[in-house]
Amino acid sequence: MAVRFELVTTDPTGARAGVLHTRRGSIPTPVFMPVATHASFRHLGMEEIKATGSKILLSNTYHLMLKPGIDVFRRFKGIHPFMQWDGAVLTDSGGFQIFSLPEDRLITEKGAHFRSFHDNSRQLLSPESSIAMQQAINSEVMMVLDVCIDSRTDEAGTREAMERTHRWALRSLAAKNQVDTGQALFAIVQGGVHPHLRDESAGFLTQHPFDGFAIGGLAVGETNEERKTMTARAASQLPQDKPRYLMGVGTPTDLLEAVLRGVDMFDCIIPTKMAQQGYAYTFQGLVRITRQAFRLSDEPLDPTCDCYVCKRYSRGYLQHLMSGKHHTGSRMLSVHNVHHYQVLTWKMRDAILRGSYAQAYRELKQAVATPKDLKDAQLEAGANAVTLKEVG
Amino acid sequence: MAVRFELVTTDPTGARAGVLHTRRGSIPTPVFMPVATHASFRHLGMEEIKATGSKILLSNTYHLMLKPGIDVFRRFKGIHPFMQWDGAVLTDSGGFQIFSLPEDRLITEKGAHFRSFHDNSRQLLSPESSIAMQQAINSEVMMVLDVCIDSRTDEAGTREAMERTHRWALRSLAAKNQVDTGQALFAIVQGGVHPHLRDESAGFLTQHPFDGFAIGGLAVGETNEERKTMTARAASQLPQDKPRYLMGVGTPTDLLEAVLRGVDMFDCIIPTKMAQQGYAYTFQGLVRITRQAFRLSDEPLDPTCDCYVCKRYSRGYLQHLMSGKHHTGSRMLSVHNVHHYQVLTWKMRDAILRGSYAQAYRELKQAVATPKDLKDAQLEAGANAVTLKEVG
Repeated sequence: MAVRFELVTTDPTGARAGVLHTRRGSIPTPVFMPVATHASFRHLGMEEIKATGSKILLSNTYHLMLKPGIDVFRRFKGIHPFMQWDGAVLTDSGGFQIFSLPEDRLITEKGAHFRSFHDNSRQLLSPESSIAMQQAINSEVMMVLDVCIDSRTDEAGTREAMERTHRWALRSLAAKNQVDTGQALFAIVQGGVHPHLRDESAGFLTQHPFDGFAIGGLAVGETNEERKTMTARAASQLPQDKPRYLMGVGTPTDLLEAVLRGVDMFDCIIPTKMAQQGYAYTFQGLVRITRQAFRLSDEPLDPTCDCYVCKRYSRGYLQHLMSGKHHTGSRMLSVHNVHHYQVLTWKMRDAILRGSYAQAYRELKQAVATPKDLKDAQLEAGANAVTLKEVG
Repeated sequence: MAVRFELVTTDPTGARAGVLHTRRGSIPTPVFMPVATHASFRHLGMEEIKATGSKILLSNTYHLMLKPGIDVFRRFKGIHPFMQWDGAVLTDSGGFQIFSLPEDRLITEKGAHFRSFHDNSRQLLSPESSIAMQQAINSEVMMVLDVCIDSRTDEAGTREAMERTHRWALRSLAAKNQVDTGQALFAIVQGGVHPHLRDESAGFLTQHPFDGFAIGGLAVGETNEERKTMTARAASQLPQDKPRYLMGVGTPTDLLEAVLRGVDMFDCIIPTKMAQQGYAYTFQGLVRITRQAFRLSDEPLDPTCDCYVCKRYSRGYLQHLMSGKHHTGSRMLSVHNVHHYQVLTWKMRDAILRGSYAQAYRELKQAVATPKDLKDAQLEAGANAVTLKEVG
């Protein structure tokens, strides 16, 4: 096996603590993977990413295929020497990017035909070419190419995309098995917001020797409640002894919800994106650092945080940097936010190991609640354990 | 004395090796000061600046006065705790920024009246308010407010600006002496491109107890030859036992020329600005890293460089980052370029200590020559030690 998942404990809630053993280190789960789209973080250096406690990062097959291109990864023998990262890497397949492409893409049974936005060259991203590219990248975990659709697609359209996703998953598996590179391959459960399609997708894919299973096609237009229901439904159909990865999700609150539903792995651009917009996640809620009120503050972003930014810099200095749109400000907030996500996963794991995730979930949801979370909770009043009264 | 300058050796050429002793460390000279305009480098963190070997940085009174404002520096007890820099700081006075302001500024004997581009508030930058701001910043070295003009101004206009600069220098000195903050104050020699005015300015200012002397009003429109002549002329009028600082200069070649003429201190945005544009200075000439030719190169930027970028990253990876306009690329080139400048100053100092600056000057000029340097040398053929034949 290219990766081995060790399930350490399942909490009474169903939340799981495990270890994902890879050739580049053993990774405690739940785990958050920060996103290095272009074999680079927007503001963070490799040393900074390491200092956040991150052990696995995500990079993007679609973008790396177009630039710098497969020949560069072959020349450098993979992404690790190229970007000087000695931790693990998961590569997405490009399915989500194809979905987001402008109109002039053509998706056939063979794959996605489109033109490079860099040089207008013709490109084909197929299950086989995606695997070839991911083999050149030499990630620890490859993803199958899937057909990603808007969550609001009707059932017939959702079924069609799901069935093609299944055929592409088997083609990806066959392509991967052509040569043993020591890389793992995860399949992606689709099925939109239709519970029986999610069941069918999980049922089909788990019959094949994939190393793990992702839940895809969420965070693309569905309601919060639909996302939670579909996550729970898909996770319940997946084997206990394989890792479960919820793609592209989410906020700290989303992570708490998904872990409650049995998910082990996450990736998201939110912590770095929010940093660029001047927001810091803390265990006392969201901090908009550009507020004038922070000009004279010599307090750290989060007094409970031990990231190097909180250990050294004041809110006043960060206010100065971010209100002046200085890159070093975005970088410091990114370091803090990614570290915050990692600490959140560690707190969840500790609670799961103690069998007290239910309590940790309630407490952490209150601690990390953002104004949007509060509004969502109000909208879903009664359907959710956290009410405005509780968090107020 | 707030700073003490120890002249260690004067080379037969007139090049000087010294030590500037400050309350935040002893700084070997010649020294290059990287520019942290807004109490922040555009791409570099404090640890990175330290790793380049920089021991003193420059920050900008004009910008810091407008944002974050004097109250912030009073609250944080100066720039060092604010930006978490424990090395030395020199603050310019704002004279150059006033010169660069749009038309609606009004310069009177009192000072410069203008409106803040942040909030349109009325501002006065006078010798006294500049000193007050620099005292709040708590830099090791303050600069007097000077009247900076275009080098091509006629003699009458140049004299008028010079004489006001002298009056303002004395007002700055008086303001500084109101309270002993332990900070040094440097005067600024003006006089444009008129040798006898340069003599007069140096003659006047050196009669007063300034801690050092800057050569100002260069790099603002004069020819290379004028700059070199004026630098030599002003330097020759300055006392041996005080540091000499050539403001806002320059390229590696400019530093070599100015040290030859007896200058000790420099600041310039060129190394970081060029980094943002994809250029790396090396001892094998200038490298434009965005060239396609570097895509597959696993060589470092400069094989003789021991900065962390050259020790870890390939030209191929830097080509990828810079051609994709990723901030981390600008940051890596900035680290390298600032480190290159520091290594250049160390090489010059070593040669001066050995009494062999003439030879080092010739060799280093060839090693760092850029296409522009070659063109300039051609234009000045005969007037310059380096000819195209030598460097070709």
